[in-house]
Amino acid sequence: MDKTTVKLKKNAKPGKSPIAVVGMPGIGNVGKLVAEHLRRELKAKRIGTIYSPHFPHQAVMLKSGRLRLVNNVVYHVKSSGKTPDLIIVTGDTQAVTPEGQYAVNSLIFRLLTERFGCKFIYTIGGYTTGQALSQKRRVFGNATSTAIISKFKNTNILFGKSKGLIWGSAGLIPAFARLGKIDAACIMGETAMLEIDAAAAKAVIEELSKVLGMKISTNNLDKIIKKTDEIMKQLAQANAGMPMQMGQMPVEGGAPVLEQGGRPSYIR
Amino acid sequence: MDKTTVKLKKNAKPGKSPIAVVGMPGIGNVGKLVAEHLRRELKAKRIGTIYSPHFPHQAVMLKSGRLRLVNNVVYHVKSSGKTPDLIIVTGDTQAVTPEGQYAVNSLIFRLLTERFGCKFIYTIGGYTTGQALSQKRRVFGNATSTAIISKFKNTNILFGKSKGLIWGSAGLIPAFARLGKIDAACIMGETAMLEIDAAAAKAVIEELSKVLGMKISTNNLDKIIKKTDEIMKQLAQANAGMPMQMGQMPVEGGAPVLEQGGRPSYIR
Amino acid sequence: MDKTTVKLKKNAKPGKSPIAVVGMPGIGNVGKLVAEHLRRELKAKRIGTIYSPHFPHQAVMLKSGRLRLVNNVVYHVKSSGKTPDLIIVTGDTQAVTPEGQYAVNSLIFRLLTERFGCKFIYTIGGYTTGQALSQKRRVFGNATSTAIISKFKNTNILFGKSKGLIWGSAGLIPAFARLGKIDAACIMGETAMLEIDAAAAKAVIEELSKVLGMKISTNNLDKIIKKTDEIMKQLAQANAGMPMQMGQMPVEGGAPVLEQGGRPSYIR
Amino acid sequence: MDKTTVKLKKNAKPGKSPIAVVGMPGIGNVGKLVAEHLRRELKAKRIGTIYSPHFPHQAVMLKSGRLRLVNNVVYHVKSSGKTPDLIIVTGDTQAVTPEGQYAVNSLIFRLLTERFGCKFIYTIGGYTTGQALSQKRRVFGNATSTAIISKFKNTNILFGKSKGLIWGSAGLIPAFARLGKIDAACIMGETAMLEIDAAAAKAVIEELSKVLGMKISTNNLDKIIKKTDEIMKQLAQANAGMPMQMGQMPVEGGAPVLEQGGRPSYIR
Repeated sequence: MDKTTVKLKKNAKPGKSPIAVVGMPGIGNVGKLVAEHLRRELKAKRIGTIYSPHFPHQAVMLKSGRLRLVNNVVYHVKSSGKTPDLIIVTGDTQAVTPEGQYAVNSLIFRLLTERFGCKFIYTIGGYTTGQALSQKRRVFGNATSTAIISKFKNTNILFGKSKGLIWGSAGLIPAFARLGKIDAACIMGETAMLEIDAAAAKAVIEELSKVLGMKISTNNLDKIIKKTDEIMKQLAQANAGMPMQMGQMPVEGGAPVLEQGGRPSYIR
Repeated sequence: MDKTTVKLKKNAKPGKSPIAVVGMPGIGNVGKLVAEHLRRELKAKRIGTIYSPHFPHQAVMLKSGRLRLVNNVVYHVKSSGKTPDLIIVTGDTQAVTPEGQYAVNSLIFRLLTERFGCKFIYTIGGYTTGQALSQKRRVFGNATSTAIISKFKNTNILFGKSKGLIWGSAGLIPAFARLGKIDAACIMGETAMLEIDAAAAKAVIEELSKVLGMKISTNNLDKIIKKTDEIMKQLAQANAGMPMQMGQMPVEGGAPVLEQGGRPSYIR
Repeated sequence: MDKTTVKLKKNAKPGKSPIAVVGMPGIGNVGKLVAEHLRRELKAKRIGTIYSPHFPHQAVMLKSGRLRLVNNVVYHVKSSGKTPDLIIVTGDTQAVTPEGQYAVNSLIFRLLTERFGCKFIYTIGGYTTGQALSQKRRVFGNATSTAIISKFKNTNILFGKSKGLIWGSAGLIPAFARLGKIDAACIMGETAMLEIDAAAAKAVIEELSKVLGMKISTNNLDKIIKKTDEIMKQLAQANAGMPMQMGQMPVEGGAPVLEQGGRPSYIR
Repeated sequence: MDKTTVKLKKNAKPGKSPIAVVGMPGIGNVGKLVAEHLRRELKAKRIGTIYSPHFPHQAVMLKSGRLRLVNNVVYHVKSSGKTPDLIIVTGDTQAVTPEGQYAVNSLIFRLLTERFGCKFIYTIGGYTTGQALSQKRRVFGNATSTAIISKFKNTNILFGKSKGLIWGSAGLIPAFARLGKIDAACIMGETAMLEIDAAAAKAVIEELSKVLGMKISTNNLDKIIKKTDEIMKQLAQANAGMPMQMGQMPVEGGAPVLEQGGRPSYIR
């Protein structure tokens, strides 16, 4: 396998002018949490798989005793008539090098626009402010044009308040969209140096629900938030009196401070 | 040399529907130990060599005073009539980058399936549980399909108990096999952060013997296990009273804790 | 996007035998400061943009709430009759790997010489001497030929006093120029391990003004120098009595000691 | 520049069946010291230059005030009738990645054999034993065949006593030679973790003189050895009573312990 490839199911019909939501592993895993939550809540159907020699050279061990190659997956949510067709893209990993990232995200962008005819692409990520986080997380956004930004005026998404760089799919795909004159926006949940931030994902889902015009329950995210608040309290008690350690920030509302690589056991 | 290449001997006959066993350097070097042990015990004949610009840029200094390029080697064990033809692949190293790993393992997979007609591929690796190891090591497995798993019911291989990712050849080759509708399984001996784990290799050999229907002596591995137990006892005595150092875990049954790069002198 | 590409505006006219000034992010960001300062002071017009899969895989978040792909930008300053046409090239970043650097800088070199007909190329960088810096910074130079060096005799640029290696665009482009028999020089402002050295940039601008025969105000650089001197004094007072920390050198004249990644807030 | 290229002078005549000596920067810089010493002592003529996008993206600042691209250089020493034609290859650097190393060394190997008709290739390197070094350094060797080894019986070169891996040009070129049925040997001077080991280079030169049948003065190397012994004594006095620092080994005979990147000032 010497090129990034997408295998689509034979009967893959993406619907009409679908809206895309791309959420990959990254800061706080906000993107991946949002995409996985959406596909479960909206009962999305898997329509394709993306493989790449630019992904880390890993196979995933499955509970069934099988294994599979690391990949990205493409899902379709059928329009209800009142709600749009959705294409959801998420996966195990992103490419490792700049050249690999450009190759994979170019393919995803072309798949969404040329093959599926997407008219709007959302990418989801996390944004670290360096400040203490509160229970209600803020949601930040950057879009391909100021005209697009005005469409979000009935949401709480803050455009133009986030500074710096967006790494990986969350940044490259809207940037390619801007060059290709396709509308897109990167929506980012406020997070800290956290492994899995369900509160940030919840805040993003709440805003996405508004713009997509879809009712999306966040009960499952609330469960994760509750579990991780418990873990955080236990950590705080165990460390009572000890100086604040690197990587631990006061967090309310749902995201444990975990070292890079540690995952709460409810994520398998 | 700008591509991964395999040089096969002119008279290379792999036999009929051979079974492949691929064991590369990796965690605990379990894969390499198993493959090298098999080829010696079964008196395998070398039938080919794999070179790649994706391997580290090294030459190996030989005891004879000669030198050679780092490589992977392909061996053939002839069927006895009752036991199958075997193709064994092992070597000095794996490729360094994701793209290099995909290139090398794609070539190995195609060599085994298209050139040699292999109907089943075993890859061998190590699996770290993070728990203290006991004398009798467990053996874990992940396969291309649940149908394959049922073939292992008369062994002690635990399918579906291992979690996480398999890096390199041990993971990629069965993952490619699954995509190519070839049967394959990754068999992993339980190990810790060890340089050479002969006890893990022995446990794997014992299970492989069952599935291959071949009697394979493990005396040579027992010698390595004994020598390394001695080294471990000496280390423990030298460190008596000192706090447990990073990388040292209680180990019984045959694997010294060695820092990355240190090799017991009996391995040359 | 699988290749480095330059998009030129349709009406891009570079003038006649323009002189090029290339200033990229690097040591002290001297190159970027000089290039950005020149384009603002001389009211340069943007005529092109360079994108590359060898740039880090990032999008830049803009104050307008939009975003864009990281890039390099090409500007043109129109000749006044007495002053030459200038082509200024600067940007967000340089390529990450050697192969990427050779690809991007080859393209820039060919753009400047073949497309624009540049007869002289300046690249700008920082040069660290390891000595304490004084208010008035020295300016060092290396050129494609000794004939070129004689053209600088009415400046304070020190040729042949700098030792070692020039990394990235500042080194590769004049090196390519020498091989392609084009005249070029790398002009370096004396700096330390600093994030943004406006004093070094000012010293370079003063010398460039002489060779280009252009009056270029340095008032804006003076503002940055003053602000950073204030920051430095505050840092020194806060650390009074504490041992000198790594990375802090006595600096007068305008460049704060900032850890890698920290930027004074006036740079957005 | 997207490929490794060699530019040969128009009148480049390598002589008849020349012997090649390749000495690149590496362990102890033994290879480079030997090659540079040979070319000066034997008054070699430069006949070619090798450039590569796999070399680090650097330009070298010259004392003349000029600059040049990092490169490797090819020299020719004319046969005296009694002594052979020699091709010497040395340079600033080696390639950074495995793929780059394979590309550059394949080109050098083909240049030497196909273009120049070399019948024997020496590569020079350093070999670290981890033991304290004595004034008289040992010289180790690994060759393409045992037949070749017998040609060295009138020297002090120890074949078959060195263990492990040879990185870079010193290992790859003889390894390619073995695959291409060309005779070659890697000759290594015993060294420690040193930046520049003139004593190791001297020991290699003494053995090379025997096999090449050429009288080669080592006076210039003696000067370097003497200077560095002085530096070593000063370091030892300054550190008297302080615990031995990492990287400092007792060394007699000529090589200072310098941290990576530090060069004695007599090397420019």
